Formats: sequence, structure tokens, C-alpha cells
Amino acid sequence: MKIKDRDELILLQKQVLEANLLLYNSKLALHTWGNVSSISSDRSYYVIKPSGISYEKMKYSDMVPVDLENNVLETNLNPSSDTPTHSLLYKADPRIKAIVHTHSPFAVAWAQAGKEIPALGTTHADNFYGSIPCTNSLSDEQINGQYEHNTGVVIVDHFKKNNLDFIATPAVLVKEHGPFCWSNKSADDAVKLAMTFEEVAKMALYTKIINPDQSQANLTLQKKHYNRKHGKNAYYGQKH
Amino acid sequence: MKIKDRDELILLQKQVLEANLLLYNSKLALHTWGNVSSISSDRSYYVIKPSGISYEKMKYSDMVPVDLENNVLETNLNPSSDTPTHSLLYKADPRIKAIVHTHSPFAVAWAQAGKEIPALGTTHADNFYGSIPCTNSLSDEQINGQYEHNTGVVIVDHFKKNNLDFIATPAVLVKEHGPFCWSNKSADDAVKLAMTFEEVAKMALYTKIINPDQSQANLTLQKKHYNRKHGKNAYYGQKH
Amino acid sequence: MKIKDRDELILLQKQVLEANLLLYNSKLALHTWGNVSSISSDRSYYVIKPSGISYEKMKYSDMVPVDLENNVLETNLNPSSDTPTHSLLYKADPRIKAIVHTHSPFAVAWAQAGKEIPALGTTHADNFYGSIPCTNSLSDEQINGQYEHNTGVVIVDHFKKNNLDFIATPAVLVKEHGPFCWSNKSADDAVKLAMTFEEVAKMALYTKIINPDQSQANLTLQKKHYNRKHGKNAYYGQKH
Amino acid sequence: MKIKDRDELILLQKQVLEANLLLYNSKLALHTWGNVSSISSDRSYYVIKPSGISYEKMKYSDMVPVDLENNVLETNLNPSSDTPTHSLLYKADPRIKAIVHTHSPFAVAWAQAGKEIPALGTTHADNFYGSIPCTNSLSDEQINGQYEHNTGVVIVDHFKKNNLDFIATPAVLVKEHGPFCWSNKSADDAVKLAMTFEEVAKMALYTKIINPDQSQANLTLQKKHYNRKHGKNAYYGQKH
Repeated sequence: MKIKDRDELILLQKQVLEANLLLYNSKLALHTWGNVSSISSDRSYYVIKPSGISYEKMKYSDMVPVDLENNVLETNLNPSSDTPTHSLLYKADPRIKAIVHTHSPFAVAWAQAGKEIPALGTTHADNFYGSIPCTNSLSDEQINGQYEHNTGVVIVDHFKKNNLDFIATPAVLVKEHGPFCWSNKSADDAVKLAMTFEEVAKMALYTKIINPDQSQANLTLQKKHYNRKHGKNAYYGQKH
Repeated sequence: MKIKDRDELILLQKQVLEANLLLYNSKLALHTWGNVSSISSDRSYYVIKPSGISYEKMKYSDMVPVDLENNVLETNLNPSSDTPTHSLLYKADPRIKAIVHTHSPFAVAWAQAGKEIPALGTTHADNFYGSIPCTNSLSDEQINGQYEHNTGVVIVDHFKKNNLDFIATPAVLVKEHGPFCWSNKSADDAVKLAMTFEEVAKMALYTKIINPDQSQANLTLQKKHYNRKHGKNAYYGQKH
Repeated sequence: MKIKDRDELILLQKQVLEANLLLYNSKLALHTWGNVSSISSDRSYYVIKPSGISYEKMKYSDMVPVDLENNVLETNLNPSSDTPTHSLLYKADPRIKAIVHTHSPFAVAWAQAGKEIPALGTTHADNFYGSIPCTNSLSDEQINGQYEHNTGVVIVDHFKKNNLDFIATPAVLVKEHGPFCWSNKSADDAVKLAMTFEEVAKMALYTKIINPDQSQANLTLQKKHYNRKHGKNAYYGQKH
Repeated sequence: MKIKDRDELILLQKQVLEANLLLYNSKLALHTWGNVSSISSDRSYYVIKPSGISYEKMKYSDMVPVDLENNVLETNLNPSSDTPTHSLLYKADPRIKAIVHTHSPFAVAWAQAGKEIPALGTTHADNFYGSIPCTNSLSDEQINGQYEHNTGVVIVDHFKKNNLDFIATPAVLVKEHGPFCWSNKSADDAVKLAMTFEEVAKMALYTKIINPDQSQANLTLQKKHYNRKHGKNAYYGQKH
């Protein structure tokens, strides 16, 4: 495949670079960990961070275009090893515009404990509708097979089985691994959500220290906060 | 209403901008979260952060003047969605000059656990007389009605029912939401108190890890520390 | 009293200013909290941070000289409200050259829990011989009397009763208050010790999370580490 | 012994200086704590941080060359007091090219608790094969004898007794002391691993707060992650 709209490609590469740098500078990942991708408007390909290259040295032209079957386009660089997970998520919901994976420590801790993050207050409810779910473990077969693809399978299965909406619940913990989140707006928005994800994971852990039995916040309060930002009659922010 | 004293308006807007930036740079809130307001000397209006605008881009002229009935004055910008909570607090005690709301993580954790922060030592007692209270939940009716107004109602009711003084106890946790605090001096002072609030919440959480049963510090010690800074014969600081 | 050696006074004031700024920049205290002092070579007076002045605005000439009876010398500024505690400590051991008080959060948490910090490993043992002790509470009479003087009394009593050496154990927690530490070298050295104090308090708290029953490290190991840095045959560092 | 290849010596000194500064700037150690060394290509000597010199003032020429019998070469500076531990590790496995010791607080906490760090998720498994082990205590005889040498003895014994491979498990906790780790690549790589070590220790502690009974992650998952980065068919990163 040859990408036709060169301006959009370069724009995506620049946005994805900026978003990756924001991820790194916000300390959501050390070293070369973590990755951000963002998809083209016709959804024929997306652009993702290259694998194992230092954040300090990345240039926008290093951002790797791949199609949704994980074929690398127009470059010799390897894309992030998590690429097949991204592909599957983009295919699972056509509203997803950008995806972020981090190893931020509080979110990872919930994933390692294999627990969903309950919605304990308005900071959570402002951004995520209900708990942030935690997937099941991958089976040994799934791990030894197409592992990164199957990571996506486990996420998508969890959302289907639990009737979760990818946009209302734009985040997930992969058990014994870590957080993924996504945005229906932009790569920048997805990384900001990853920062929020980590903050909410931190607050929930602190809450558990004060009261180990704390569970969900009042559901009416959760809905109110989610809807004042994201509902039909949202009134947070400025009119555009 | 037309604001007459233009110099005071601009001064308030500049002070409120600076205080909001201090809040953000002190990491008491991410993204566009949190807000600071400060009231005019005749208490006919106050100035508050606009809703959902990034801290990095805010200018002093973006700070929104509103009257105490939540009417926006002289601008097309939306004020913070928490504006009705601020209005009610300004009406509840005429000594309050500035109000701050944050989502600082340690304070939020206590709010999410629905627990007051006990006065465990002198750092707390230097600044807050007795525990920092935590309100009851809002009822579903209060949430589905004028939610932000009712958040103020719940705070004011809690102070009345428990005979708390707004100046001796210049802070509160709204259950399942987060911290509000205020100052009888200035917006800058209120944000500094929000920093102290978070520090005290952190110290209290750490103390609970070491000794889960720790309760109030000696009351005589609490009074001594509060009064050496805030009492009639205060001797902390310089003579003015 | 008139201070004769003007060069030493200015040198002390500059050292005490620098040490106070190091304390603040190391985030051992917020706002105007915390203080550092250092004593003259003939021990006729010492220099201490003024009360309630912002760290950002302090000049070296604001550092307040006081004698060991708490009389302010040659200035109209108020010294730190903790001055009488410093005076008593300087009188308790003539080897003490500088004293630091902070509200660093991990150390404060141990003080609020009323627990000594056990020597759990070599980081502690490299710097403190045995546990960092925690004093008893002050009695109501001691609090309502000369409070800051009596804070010193409680510290000195604790060291006497427990046969502690002020140089081998250069730190203490005042119950429900916070950490004090000191140095037989300089104000700079005392602040570096306050940083170590906070680090050791943090490590001890984390250790308690992993194993709530953890007590003292092997005593032979503690002595080895203390002595390789501070003993007669110390071999850490460079020959001078 | 006279070092023949002067260019390699200077290169090692510069690399070791840079790696020590990275250690310090990454906040893995306060003050003069911690040390990094790296060995020459013929393994006749290695270069290590001098003892007790401030990181801010170190120059590359201060990095001390020592042979594997702990003899200092060509300088009057004392090497790190932990030098005999480094020597023993270099002798234990000829693939080790660089060694790092820190007092990073989360890793120290596990060492103080005397517990290995279980492999709870992929962040750990990407970098360490199986748990990060914790040694036994040194005996009183070992402490009172050649202490730093015996620290190495205890590490090497632990690896032998437990059939651990120094390259697959490039890290250890010395009980009641702290972390050591090493690299078969470079000083820079070893310090980056020390950062990962601390991050993994932090994540494991947070996980224990959420679920105190959490043990090892799925072994198949651990192997998959370790091998995709370090195995024969590794596919993480770029082809070189």
C-alpha cells in the first residue's frame, strides 16, 4: 500500500511524536517503554512509535506507518512490539482515533493485582463510566501463539462479554501487564487520559489504605459527573 | 450589573490568575481540573477561573467575574462548573475572601474513603482547628437537582450542624469528591492552604500506615499550636 | 551583648541562609516551615532563621543572632518560634554546631504515630547509631508553660534517661510534632542529615508495608556500618 | 600493574562518570551514596567511583582504576568502600561488564524486609527472569571479617545454591542492605537497569497494598516477555 495523502501522514507523525514525548515527560514510562499511535482519517493505516528507540532521540519521521493487518509501510523501522494490540483495538471500534500503552506504576499495580479500579469518586467518574476493567489472564496457548494480537483479543472479548462501550470506558488493565487507553479525539487527548488513568489509580490505592473495604461511589453521582462532561447536555468547558 | 471599580477588577483577575497558576504548578490538579476564586471588597461579585481552559493558555482577562447569584458579568466565557459552590460559601461567611478547589490525590483519597482527616500533629494544628471535616453524601435528589449549588448546601449544613467556624476550620472534604478550602486573606493564601491541606492529608495517610489506630493528637497541643499562629496573642512571624 | 567578631557573624549568617535554602529546595518543608541554626565558635551566640519569612525572600542579613538565653542580638526581626528548643540543645551538648527542624512528611508520620524509627538496614546504620528515638508527649503543663523551651526539655530528658549520645544519635522525633536533628560539623551537614532522616523514615515505612513485623537489623551489621563511617578506624571517604 | 591502553582507561573513566551522574540525577541515591563501575576489555582492571566524593564535584579523572584483587592503580584516591563486592562479582561471571549499587528506597525496603521481589507482571519479566532474589544475612563473622568482600561472597553463594544465572537475573538484594545489579553491556545499561529495578520494586510494593497475597505472575507470560527481549528469537527493538 502506498499512502496517498502525504500531508496527513506527516501531520499524524508529528502528532504521534508529540504525544509520545508527552507520555515520557509525564513519567508514565521509563526508558523506551510505552507507545502511542493514531489512525488516519480513512482508517487505512495508523502511525505508531518505533520499537526500542529512545524518546530523546526520536524524530517525527521515525514514527512507523502500519496498516490494520500489521504490515509496515514505507520504512525499515520496526514498529512497537505492541502493534498487533493496537490494530485489533482500531478494528474493534471505528470511533477510536488514538491508543496509548504505558507502564505507569499505580495502574500497573492494579493490573498486577488483577483487580479492576472501582469508581470511588468524581475524579474517576469525570473520565470513565464505571470501573476501569481488568481483563482475564491470557491462556498459555494465547501467550505462546500470536501474543500481542491475543492481548487485543482478550481486551475486546472482555468489553463484549461485559457490554462495555469503548468510548464511555476508554481504558483497560491487561492482567499482569498494564494499562491501555484510547481516545475518540486525538493522540494528545489519549495521553492526557493516560495521565488521568494513573492519577485515578493512585487515588484508588490511597483510598484502599484508608479504608480497605471502600467500594463504588454513589451511582447517581457517577452518572452526574460523567454526563456533565460527556453527556448530551454537557456543560463543562467552553461553547465552541 | 456593571462593575464600577475597574482597577479592582483587573487586580482581582491578576491575583486569581496567579493563584490558579500556583495551584497548577504545585501539582494540586492535572489538566484543567481545580479552580480558585476571589471576591471584591464590596462582595458584589467575585472572579473565578473559566471552565475547561488549559492553565498554560489562560490570560488574566479570561478570569470570569460572576455575581453571588451565579450570573456571569461582562464576558462570554463560562465560569468554572463549580461556581455555584463558591457562591454559596461566599454567602455563608462574609469573612471568606478566596476559595480553592483541587483534586490533589491525598486529600481526594480521604474524601473517597468518606473520612475526616484527624488532627494528628502540629503541622495540622498550626493550620486547622480540629479535624478537617468530611461532608455527608449528597442525596440523589440533590445530585439530580442543582448539583453544584447543593454541594455548597451540604458543606454549609455540615458546618452549621457541627458548630464549625469557617475561619478556624478553613477546609472541608466533600464526600466521594474532593477538597475545598478558603482564606480570609487572599487567593494566594488560599492556594498555599490547599498545599498545606494536601501535605496534612499525606502525613495522616502515612501515619495510618504506621499505626492504623492513631487518633487525635493531644488537644492542649492542638490549641497551643493553633493559637500561637492564629490566636489573640499569636507570636509566630514578624510584627507588622 | 555586642558580637565582636563581625567576620564570623557574617560567615555564620551566610552559611545559615544557604542551609535554610537547601532545606527548602530539598522539599523538607513547605511555605515558611522549618529552620536551621548554627553556633559561633565561642558558643556565646548562634544564628537562626527569622520567623515566618518566605524562603524565597530571605537575605543573609535577615538571619537572627540570639544568645543561649534566647535574647535577640542586634536586630528587630523575630527569630524562629522554635528558638528556645535550639538554645536548650546547644546547652545540652557542647559538640553540637548546627540544628535543623523540618516538617518532612515521612518523619512527621513516625512522630505522629509516636513511634521510634527502628534501624532496619545499613542506610540507617550508616548515619544513626540505633533507633531514631521518639520523645514522650509534653504534659499539658509543659505545653501551656514555656512550650518551645519544654520541647527542648523533653528531648534532653529522653536522651539522658535512655543514655543516648547526641553525636552518635544526632536526631529525634518529638511526639505529635516532627523531626529535629543536628551536626557536630556545620549547618550544611545538618541539613544533609535531615535529608537522610527523611529518606530513612520513608524506607522504614515502606518496609513496614512489606512486613509489618520487621524489627531491628542485625546489631553487628549496624555497628559495622556506623563505625566504618564514624568510628576510630573509619575507612569511608578520602584521607584529608 | 601499569595500564597499557590509555585510551580505553580514559573512555572507561568517562563512561563510569556519566553512569554515576545518571544514577544521581535519577535519584537512586542521595549525597555520596551509590556507585557504578565498569571493567576493561581484558578484565585486568575496572574503574569505580571514588569513596565519599560529591557527585556534583566528580571529574572523570577521579574515577579510580583497581585490579580484581582490590589494588588501587595509578591514583591516591580511595575507591568506593564497596569495591571488594564489585571485584568478586566480576570474578564470578566473566560476562559482567558493569556493576551498580544504589540505596534507592523501594528496593532498599524489600532488602530491609528480607524478601525477594516476586515477578508480578510483564514490567518485571521484561527485565528479570524470575524473582529478584534476596540473600541471606551475613554471619557476625562475615561482618566482622572482610565485610565488603563477604557481601560479594553471600551474593555469589546465593546464585550458586539457587542455580541462578547472572545474566538472566542481573540483580540482587543484599538483606538489610540494598540493591546491586549489573550488565553484560555497559555502565550506562547497568544504571538504566537500576532504574528499572527501583520501578519494579515500587510496582511490587503497590501491588502488595492492593492484594497482600499476590504471588508470581503466570510463568508462561514471564518467559514470553523475557524471551521477546532477551531470547534467541528476540523481536523487541530494531535490527542492528
